[in-house]
Amino acid sequence: MPPKINFSKAAITKIEPLTSEAARWVQIQKIHFNDASGKPRDWEFASRTTRVPGSDCDGVGILAVLKKPSGPELLLQKQFRPPVGGVCIEVPAGLLDPGETLEQCAVRELFEETGYIGKATRSSPLMFSDPGFCNTNMKLITVDIDLDDPRNQNPQSKPEEGEFIETFTVPLKEFSETLRKLESEGFKLDARVQNVADGFDLARQYGLFLNK
Amino acid sequence: MPPKINFSKAAITKIEPLTSEAARWVQIQKIHFNDASGKPRDWEFASRTTRVPGSDCDGVGILAVLKKPSGPELLLQKQFRPPVGGVCIEVPAGLLDPGETLEQCAVRELFEETGYIGKATRSSPLMFSDPGFCNTNMKLITVDIDLDDPRNQNPQSKPEEGEFIETFTVPLKEFSETLRKLESEGFKLDARVQNVADGFDLARQYGLFLNK
Repeated sequence: MPPKINFSKAAITKIEPLTSEAARWVQIQKIHFNDASGKPRDWEFASRTTRVPGSDCDGVGILAVLKKPSGPELLLQKQFRPPVGGVCIEVPAGLLDPGETLEQCAVRELFEETGYIGKATRSSPLMFSDPGFCNTNMKLITVDIDLDDPRNQNPQSKPEEGEFIETFTVPLKEFSETLRKLESEGFKLDARVQNVADGFDLARQYGLFLNK
Repeated sequence: MPPKINFSKAAITKIEPLTSEAARWVQIQKIHFNDASGKPRDWEFASRTTRVPGSDCDGVGILAVLKKPSGPELLLQKQFRPPVGGVCIEVPAGLLDPGETLEQCAVRELFEETGYIGKATRSSPLMFSDPGFCNTNMKLITVDIDLDDPRNQNPQSKPEEGEFIETFTVPLKEFSETLRKLESEGFKLDARVQNVADGFDLARQYGLFLNK
């Protein structure tokens, strides 16, 4: 597992309004549409400028599972995220490159961000992050990491310049409780992580969960 | 349950760029920050203009559960969402009003959107929809709907002008499979819904799920 990162220097110094003309990564658009009764209306939304032309998907999130003798563990990350003003708990994720499948993207991003070589075992449907506000979307790819594979003995991440990502694992059965503990310590929770834990809790609350 | 809605007239007619000055609901901003090594950098992000001043939360999503003799059912909604260009499968949701708690917001929004009177039984941690792209966030509130309560015998939604929301329920144990079926029929899936189903699937795939 890569070393811990000291995030104490990471901080916002200033936030300022940005004009559409000056923005490189984010754009806002106005949609003219007819509602279900046929009446013309309009709506504002935000989008990324980075989506691969011709693709209908921005990228992937990765549910990377390490099968340990003590039980499966989920791989999570800590990363300072300026928009939320703090260190966020996330799954490994990345934007799709031209020509690759989502599963290839997941295996590539996992390798780059953590050094682990994995195998995609499940793809979620396409899901939209906040459909009333923006069009950003992703699929969640489940990737198994075989710890018996010699290539996974001493994984080394390959961070890009300026990329500071700390990787850690959580026993799957303690997933939901761990996120609440991390929030109490001041970390921000990515909805793609917390909602998966909400699924655990919902199954547990209504008796669909095995207590092991 | 309210009547079905015919969404066949709902369609985008035009999408056009919008300047920051002309936008009312969405804004883009530039953050100046120091990264974990202390190096100054900047980042662009999108935000809502609607957050209650002094609040750190935009609103709630609602996991509304109806306890039926045949097993718990989850309440879901269909709504045309211009940013994703289609009819989205969502949980009931809403933005926080000044002076109310998140639990009060959840019970109020559920009543307005579906007519059901519920009781909040669980609040998720605060979660960020897409922390690299925007600062929008929410908590997911679980709300029990008691079908023996006479007020829940004939629930009537109170849609706002121009609001077209169809409500339906899904047996909790068929939740994940139902979302895949809805996607295959052309519906768009809200991540807040699909990720909860991903939690179900993850628990099931790694043997934490009871098969009932």
